[in-house]
Amino acid sequence: MGTPDTLKAAAIQMSCILGNKEANLQKAESLILKAVKKGAKLVVVPELFSTGYRVEEQDVALAEVIPDETADWFCRIAREHQIYLIGAILEKSVVNGNIYDTAVAAGPEGLIGSYRKIHLWDAENTRFTKGEDYPVFDLGFARLGMQICYEVGFPEGARILAMQGADIVVYPSAFGKARLYAWDIATRARALENGLYVIASNLTGTEKEETTFGGTSRIINPMGTVLAEAGQDEEVIVSEIDLSFVTKQRRTIPYLRDWNKSAIIKGFLE
Amino acid sequence: MGTPDTLKAAAIQMSCILGNKEANLQKAESLILKAVKKGAKLVVVPELFSTGYRVEEQDVALAEVIPDETADWFCRIAREHQIYLIGAILEKSVVNGNIYDTAVAAGPEGLIGSYRKIHLWDAENTRFTKGEDYPVFDLGFARLGMQICYEVGFPEGARILAMQGADIVVYPSAFGKARLYAWDIATRARALENGLYVIASNLTGTEKEETTFGGTSRIINPMGTVLAEAGQDEEVIVSEIDLSFVTKQRRTIPYLRDWNKSAIIKGFLE
Repeated sequence: MGTPDTLKAAAIQMSCILGNKEANLQKAESLILKAVKKGAKLVVVPELFSTGYRVEEQDVALAEVIPDETADWFCRIAREHQIYLIGAILEKSVVNGNIYDTAVAAGPEGLIGSYRKIHLWDAENTRFTKGEDYPVFDLGFARLGMQICYEVGFPEGARILAMQGADIVVYPSAFGKARLYAWDIATRARALENGLYVIASNLTGTEKEETTFGGTSRIINPMGTVLAEAGQDEEVIVSEIDLSFVTKQRRTIPYLRDWNKSAIIKGFLE
Repeated sequence: MGTPDTLKAAAIQMSCILGNKEANLQKAESLILKAVKKGAKLVVVPELFSTGYRVEEQDVALAEVIPDETADWFCRIAREHQIYLIGAILEKSVVNGNIYDTAVAAGPEGLIGSYRKIHLWDAENTRFTKGEDYPVFDLGFARLGMQICYEVGFPEGARILAMQGADIVVYPSAFGKARLYAWDIATRARALENGLYVIASNLTGTEKEETTFGGTSRIINPMGTVLAEAGQDEEVIVSEIDLSFVTKQRRTIPYLRDWNKSAIIKGFLE
């Protein structure tokens, strides 16, 4: 795919049928195809889009070993359309059977890697085991970091990824409508303070008659400007992103250069 | 002063005459009096408001030992009006003569403490020595953290202060008009992600015909909502703040509780 400075990125916003992987994956694929038709090369789908978010008592039954099943679906679509595809699914550890909320990234060549959610929201603490690592993956044209939903409110995650060279941080999400004020501020803050692109893909709709997701999926540039934003319905948003702007913005406001590691580590340890 | 849950806070927005402490302090005092008349008990003045920001070649001559001179002026005003007063001035270390950009806090009982700017912007790196510590001060009714200007873009500072119990973080600033997009996002992000009040007091006007400050001083609640905001001219903004909302908002979105110290420290050290 070469190393273009500009490419089109997309965020898929969708609702799910709880526990029905076949229907959810079918819908996701049709929405991804819309993004591909608009020229998207990097596509992000929401958190737990294949199962629905509030599957709870079905977590163990629905969780999958990576790279099987849905991870394989990611690889097939990425290969067929020569795109990079990222989204979060229920993972069952092949090592110990633990359940994780895990973002998967696939590209034209296959599985790129995965990220296990570190900061769990509310009842997720009883459903999932926490991840421990902040990996960054080299896509050739950009370096990719992944965070999930609630984590957009933890600036340290995007900072760690940026310090490892991330140009793009994606946030597959199941973010609640009641806290959209946090989504609005945090998605832009993460892009601004690290001088990178944020692609935040959110669920929409209501699950179990009590959890309503906020939609408002967004693509944000390194100044914190919203380039594209979805409403509350199912929608595919696409925007061109210019990776040379990462370097440029990091010169305009050199947060990463000026970051005082020793004072900050000392402060965190006190 | 008891321990009220609610009190009025103020941010002073002003322009300066470069190098003319007498005139600047006189103006600052008259603006502080306006805030006091509106009931303010906690008042923040901008960064280097007593000297002007771009004094550069006069830094050494204008810098002062704390708690002398301008620090003493802080104490007098705080005592006379029974308020808490915070602002940043040029400090000359009594130990080694180093020059710092230092926030000073005074209260009805006298000097409370000071904070030396850690993250220096641009040419400040050639003017000032960096601070190293993130102190938090107990005011009785609240715990106070201080950061200065550019530092609003470094989320780690406010996080360290919040972890030490800060309810209010103040940002005496000389923030440039050209980068107001960063001011807008960052001031709200710091309040939101730590569930605390932000009081950001900025300079206005133009110095040396090339540096125009952005005004837009703000008082922001723990949800990241702007309670009061100045325009571009000299102005005093006042808002009631409710400290019980800090605890309440930290229950609504428990960022501090869920903060994964070990994973973050590990990530920062990699």
